[in-house]
Parts: sequence; structure tokens; C-alpha cells
Amino acid sequence: MDFDRYDRIRPIRWQGDRLSLLDQRKLPFVTEYVQCHDADAVAAAIHALVVRGAPAIGIAAAWGAVLAGQRVAAADGAQALAKLARDFEHLQAARPTAVNLMWALARVRRVLAAAGADWLAVLECEAAAIETEDLAANRYMGALGAALIAPGSGVLTHCNTGSLATAGFGTALGVIRAGVAEGRIERVYASETRPWLQGARLTVWELVQDGIAATLIADGAAAHLMKTGAVQWLVVGADRICANGDAANKIGTYSHAIAARHHGVKVMVVAPSSTVDMATAHGDDIEIEMRDPDELLAMGGVRTVADGVQAWNPVFDVTPAGLIDAIVTERGVVERPDTSRMAGVFGAG
Amino acid sequence: MDFDRYDRIRPIRWQGDRLSLLDQRKLPFVTEYVQCHDADAVAAAIHALVVRGAPAIGIAAAWGAVLAGQRVAAADGAQALAKLARDFEHLQAARPTAVNLMWALARVRRVLAAAGADWLAVLECEAAAIETEDLAANRYMGALGAALIAPGSGVLTHCNTGSLATAGFGTALGVIRAGVAEGRIERVYASETRPWLQGARLTVWELVQDGIAATLIADGAAAHLMKTGAVQWLVVGADRICANGDAANKIGTYSHAIAARHHGVKVMVVAPSSTVDMATAHGDDIEIEMRDPDELLAMGGVRTVADGVQAWNPVFDVTPAGLIDAIVTERGVVERPDTSRMAGVFGAG
Repeated sequence: MDFDRYDRIRPIRWQGDRLSLLDQRKLPFVTEYVQCHDADAVAAAIHALVVRGAPAIGIAAAWGAVLAGQRVAAADGAQALAKLARDFEHLQAARPTAVNLMWALARVRRVLAAAGADWLAVLECEAAAIETEDLAANRYMGALGAALIAPGSGVLTHCNTGSLATAGFGTALGVIRAGVAEGRIERVYASETRPWLQGARLTVWELVQDGIAATLIADGAAAHLMKTGAVQWLVVGADRICANGDAANKIGTYSHAIAARHHGVKVMVVAPSSTVDMATAHGDDIEIEMRDPDELLAMGGVRTVADGVQAWNPVFDVTPAGLIDAIVTERGVVERPDTSRMAGVFGAG
Repeated sequence: MDFDRYDRIRPIRWQGDRLSLLDQRKLPFVTEYVQCHDADAVAAAIHALVVRGAPAIGIAAAWGAVLAGQRVAAADGAQALAKLARDFEHLQAARPTAVNLMWALARVRRVLAAAGADWLAVLECEAAAIETEDLAANRYMGALGAALIAPGSGVLTHCNTGSLATAGFGTALGVIRAGVAEGRIERVYASETRPWLQGARLTVWELVQDGIAATLIADGAAAHLMKTGAVQWLVVGADRICANGDAANKIGTYSHAIAARHHGVKVMVVAPSSTVDMATAHGDDIEIEMRDPDELLAMGGVRTVADGVQAWNPVFDVTPAGLIDAIVTERGVVERPDTSRMAGVFGAG
């Protein structure tokens, strides 16, 4: 399959002596890369949301560690190692709750601890491996997920799970790229994803860049769209998947999944196996992060809703396993997920 | 019940020699009335969406006819009557598809045709009656609907069906006002209602004006809200109700209704009997108006989504009768609506 044709966006570009990061704050109208010459610049870019999406953050941090190493290599002695530690701390503090950031830095630390005189080359290899593995996992998930989709289908996705959030290709959006490349998917719809509008700002931009026709809908129009028969699959990502298959994802996913079941539209959740948390038994055990009400009450710092109004602004909701037809990871597909089928692929909790 | 306490907003104020219209384009931050001194000014205000909502448009047009009559009374002879006809035409052309506008002007024409020398007084009486009857119908629907809601309940509404869209009190929002006045409703949630944000701009403004605490949510957060147990009823308006009880309403209503059924949250549709169209058998027979994709692709005339993206922007969706627990009109309540129960209240089609 010619996946390359539909995979031209790279949010993270290693340049040998600097890291170029596609500034996602300025999309879709300005395509501009921020140049990071040291680890602190990478940490600042992560903190400022120049780069977003769990896998992409981890990859950027790993390259930040390489930039730190290059500076140390040019310096000398004990001071040099101390400087590396300080840079790692800064990177880690850039998004303290980002699991993939911790995971990537832990991987880098592990190979450093075992390396000899060639430690800088080892470090650079590890960063490249983290990036390459992510891209390969996404393309493999893309093929696995697309195989479930019948030719002539339409799909709806929510939020952004694409190249921008990963090394490239994306997770749920990777399945859509693969499905288009294989001629299975004929219609792609993306919902806006209030309040941040990741669907409107990022997902449809990505698809247009790769020559995939995309139609934007209001979040509230999803059920009516399904009723028209235009879509056969809802394809979404996940921030955490529990041992029983319940999946937390961007707010609005659960509404879409209920409407999908009501209309016989199938639901696919696509995420790397690092998202699967076998230690959490059930979706009810996931604490849903609440964000600033101002995301609904103001726009660009200017209040748009009357004073005295409260807002309720959960970031995620949980789609129960019973509404999910397939969970796709790079370790395999779990159809009609439940605790037993999940354990079959991911082991016990 | 002290309904007055929760009913302080009047979008239309007759001043004897002019009509004051609350400029809904400027809400929620500027509360400004546009002064209309003749029928053409009223027609222009209706056309420019100073006033919106089917009942409110009809009432404004009736008062526009009175302003036309006042000018004619001061003039003389055959020219005077010709002028009245021209003014009626201008009013009718202001929103050509607004059924209530036609209905109000037809009522006014009917009494004029039967009136004698006191025709101007009769005209003014008819306009006042149209306004007063709407307010009375809304308060009666409010009482009927609120009676269905158990004390201690929370409700979710969508779009704006309030004082702003009517003579006052509102339809679905009237039920919420009545339910709060009677101590039955303890929590009120409103969804934003993309793309126009009537929920965020108008509904929560109205509620705050009347001292009713309101919480705004993203449209996509409705299902998650229902899962928390915070709401027991979804209370919405309708643009058209079919002979079988299927109800067309603002896009997003259908998604909410499916989620409501999934969670055991009840669904109430509140609308004046003029909304019931017994000549349309089924919701599938309703043509859904599509609006400009730019409502999703641009904001304030500035494009916010990448070039090359399409948008699908239906204005309404249809909630099938099977998902509706009660239809509330001023002619009575139809619980678990179907063709037979609808005919029992509204007669045959």
C-alpha cells in the first residue's frame, strides 16, 4: 500500500544540530517551524504547546536530550554530567502530567546508564528509535484498523489523532489514512471538537495537506449525519484504555459512540499499547480532568458569555467497552473488548 | 406560583407610537433597544435579526402593522389604503420563510377586513392580543411541563427557546422557569449550540437576568453530563412537530435525545400548537434546511479552517417520537407521542 502518499506531515524534524518543531499554535494558516538549539528551547516549546499529542511530546523530549548531550560533549568533566541532569529536569517539568514525556526520558536515561565512550551516538540512536518505532507502530495500526473497514465506507473522527500528535501518520487518523490508501474509505468527516476545535483547526488541515477530502461538522450534527447513512465507522483515539476495554478520550467521544450504536455505526478505538492501563480495572476508576471554564466562556481572552454563568468543562469522557467494536493497538486488535479478551492481548493487570 | 419573578425580559415593547426591539445581535454584553417608528423600520429589524424566534417575529410584525395604520390614519383617502398594503408587503418579505410572520399578518388582515370606523383601535387590539396570547400560552405550557418534573431534578436545554424568542417566558425555557419557580428544578444546564451559539450567547444570559443559576456545557459534553446523574430531563423546543410526534429542532437536539434515552433521562418537547403540522405524517417528510458552510469554516467573516475543507451544516435534525416522553403545547400534553395520541389532542391531519 502506498501509505507515503498520504503521510507527508512531520511535526518534528531532527536537523543534526537542532530540532525543528511545527508550531501547532499557528495552524492552520501559518506553517512555521520553531528552531530549538538546546534542551531548554525544546522544554519551552513543549510547555508552550508548540508541539502537542502524547507520542509527539515524548519524541521531542528525546531529541531535547540529544541536544543536551551535544553541549555536554563539547564541555568537560563533572560539570558536564551535572548539566545533563539539569537539562533532563527541565524537559521533564515542561508538561508534568504527560506520561509519554516521562516514558521517553526514562528510555533515554536507561541507555545512557549502560553506554560507554560512544554515549552521545547511543543517545542519538535511541531518540531516532523512539521516533521511528512510533511511526512504524502507527502504520501497522493503520493497516490493522483499515482491514476492518469494508470498501465504500464513510468514517467520522473526533479531535486530532494524526501526524501532528505523533511522529507521523497518526493513530485513529492513521487508520483513516490507511483506509483511504487502500480504497476502503470514500468519505471522511471530522467533528469540530469544542472547546479547543482540534478537529476544525488540525484534523481537517492534516487531511487536506495529504490530499484527503474531508468534511467538517458541528459536534452536535454527528447523530444526524449517522442517520443519513454517510458513515459506517466512528474511528477515534484514546488517552487511556482500561483492563475491561473502557476507553477515555476527548470530551464528545462518548456522545458520538452512543449515537453510533443507535444507528448501527461501528466504533473503533486506535491507540498505542502504551495507552493500555491494565492496572485500572474500569472506566469509573479514571478521574476525569476538569479544565478552566473560561475555555467555554471566553475566546482569545475576551469574555463571550454573560457574567454570572458557570461552565462545566470536562476534558475527557469514557466510552464503555460495550459500545466499542474494536480496539486497535500495535500489539493487535481486540474485537468486542472485555476483560478476558483484553488480557489475551495485554496480559493480566 | 410566582412566575413574574422569573420573567423579566421583554424583547418587544410597544410604546404607543413606536416599537422598541431588544437588539439580539448585541447580546449578551450590550442591552440595547432599536426604536422602530414605522413599518419599514420593523421589517428592516426583522430582516437584520434584531428580533429572532418564530413567535417574537410574528408579534413584531403585528405591531409593525399598527405603525403602518397610524400613518395611514393621519393621511387621507384611497392613497392611505394603498400605503397600508405596501407596508404589509414589506413586513411579509422581511423573513419570507417565517410561518409565524405570515400567520400574524393574516390575523391582522382578517380583523381589518371586518372592522368599521374604529379600524385603527381594532388593529392595535389585535396586535396586543397576539402578544398577550403568546405570553399566556407560554406560562400555561410552563405549568403543564413543570408538573411532569419531579422535585430535585436537573434539566438540560439546547438552543434558545426563551423570552427572547417569544412575547416572554419562552417555550422550553418557560417550562424551566416554571420548574424553578415551583422548586422542582434545582440544576439548569444549557449546551452551547454550535454553530450559532444561541445557548452560550442567549439562553444563559436570559437565565442569569432572571436570577436562575445556569451552567454552560459544550454540545459534546451532554452524554457525559447525563452519565453523572446531574440531569433528569432534556427540555427542548421544536420548529415543527409531525402527525406522528416526530419533532424537528435545532441541530444537536437528536444527539442529546439519543444520549438521554441511553441514560434514562426523559425528553420533553415544548412548543405552541401552531408548531404542530398534522399534514406532515412523519419526520422523514421534513426537508432539512442546509445553511452556509461558512458558519463552520469562518468566524466574523474571517476564515478559521484550512482552505479546501468542506463543511456539512444542517440547521435542524429530527428527533423521532419514540425518543420523546412528552410533547407539551398550550392545548395539552401528549405523553409517549404517536399518531393516535397526537390526533387525540390535535385532530386528524
